[in-house]
Amino acid sequence: MIKVALIGRGNVSFHLEKILRTTEEVDVTVYDSRKKQNSNKLQSFDICLIAVSDGAIKQVSEKLKGSDSIIAHTSGSVSINELPSDCHRGVFYPLQTFSKSKEVDFSEIPICIEADNDKNLILLSKLGNSISKNVQEVSSAQRKSLHLAAVFANNFTNHLYGIANEICFENNLPFDLIKPLIVETTDKIKNLSPFEAQTGPARRNDLSTVNDHLKLLQDSDHEKIYKLLTQSIQRTYGQKL
Amino acid sequence: MIKVALIGRGNVSFHLEKILRTTEEVDVTVYDSRKKQNSNKLQSFDICLIAVSDGAIKQVSEKLKGSDSIIAHTSGSVSINELPSDCHRGVFYPLQTFSKSKEVDFSEIPICIEADNDKNLILLSKLGNSISKNVQEVSSAQRKSLHLAAVFANNFTNHLYGIANEICFENNLPFDLIKPLIVETTDKIKNLSPFEAQTGPARRNDLSTVNDHLKLLQDSDHEKIYKLLTQSIQRTYGQKL
Repeated sequence: MIKVALIGRGNVSFHLEKILRTTEEVDVTVYDSRKKQNSNKLQSFDICLIAVSDGAIKQVSEKLKGSDSIIAHTSGSVSINELPSDCHRGVFYPLQTFSKSKEVDFSEIPICIEADNDKNLILLSKLGNSISKNVQEVSSAQRKSLHLAAVFANNFTNHLYGIANEICFENNLPFDLIKPLIVETTDKIKNLSPFEAQTGPARRNDLSTVNDHLKLLQDSDHEKIYKLLTQSIQRTYGQKL
Repeated sequence: MIKVALIGRGNVSFHLEKILRTTEEVDVTVYDSRKKQNSNKLQSFDICLIAVSDGAIKQVSEKLKGSDSIIAHTSGSVSINELPSDCHRGVFYPLQTFSKSKEVDFSEIPICIEADNDKNLILLSKLGNSISKNVQEVSSAQRKSLHLAAVFANNFTNHLYGIANEICFENNLPFDLIKPLIVETTDKIKNLSPFEAQTGPARRNDLSTVNDHLKLLQDSDHEKIYKLLTQSIQRTYGQKL
């Protein structure tokens, strides 16, 4: 049995708690980082998972100084070195987008782990394997880049869905019309590289359609985004701008 | 039996041919628009589908002037009025991204149809229903906006996957690590609006992470895209820039 203290009440903690409660090898207790709690209590855990906002990790982990538990945060962008040096340090980063209103399948989520020594790495790995098929050792520097890649692949693509949604709404078109296309966009890159999967007016250098689209766009933000991404696609395929 | 002539040898024609050949109610014959062919031959079809590049639609359709068939193009951005006025005009636009090396499930693809009269619309609708569960009447103006929305939802998101892929490659990380996140990004918006589904540093106004990411980006194109999309997300959620 791995005894886990889970600190934080955000989206990551919400989903981690849910999955860890259903995991037989794990006994999880949740703490709110904003409430005062006796840090002695946290001594009896194998792992303290700090699932708080990036800016609060340092402060929360300072309170756990000198603990025998592994102190591991769950952030994509914070280095392991930001944890107090006089404790067992680790990282347990589930690479996924979490919203409270959407269930996730943890078995498919890559869990990126890092630790200050092999013994601690093995225990974090055991915890990871109890909820996911995909546990990977990733250094702090790599994890930072991975998080950056994730921002492009998730945050920014979702924002583009939002713009597509707005354009549909303004033209009395249901956004549902676009959803099969979105599903296929994702399905394609299971077997094709994004480079191979690219289609559209920018890819085939169809400047007449590009200009028509620019005329249609009312919002100056959307126009700038259209121009910049079109130029970036054109450059990727060696087209003259 | 609907007799269909399919003109063109591109990605759309490739996939339309495949599905129409397996459809019992349809008899399809394919023509290459670049080869000379006796346009009298095309007289015996109920529908001539012109699946050629946008710029070639006018020229190809001119050759079919005076035909008794419905002359329908398959483009997202070309108006029905660009077809010759002295023929039965229509549009048969499958809203999807097509690459030859990727199979598609036509039953889920919205087929956007338009015609110059009800009789022609009914026949195009019959053809659409023979391959898809989702046939919609969409005007030329709406179709243009729909195509613009599709560029954001597919072309641009795929390009962002490409950037994520590059960042992974440069840091010796397998792109496969990001794929479950991409699948979830799409899965989320089945039930949440993109507005609700948004997460990430720009959404939570985490400027420290945004600045770290900007420092990490080596490519000036990627840096510009990161900045512009971050600002656009911040505006969407009413954050001060």
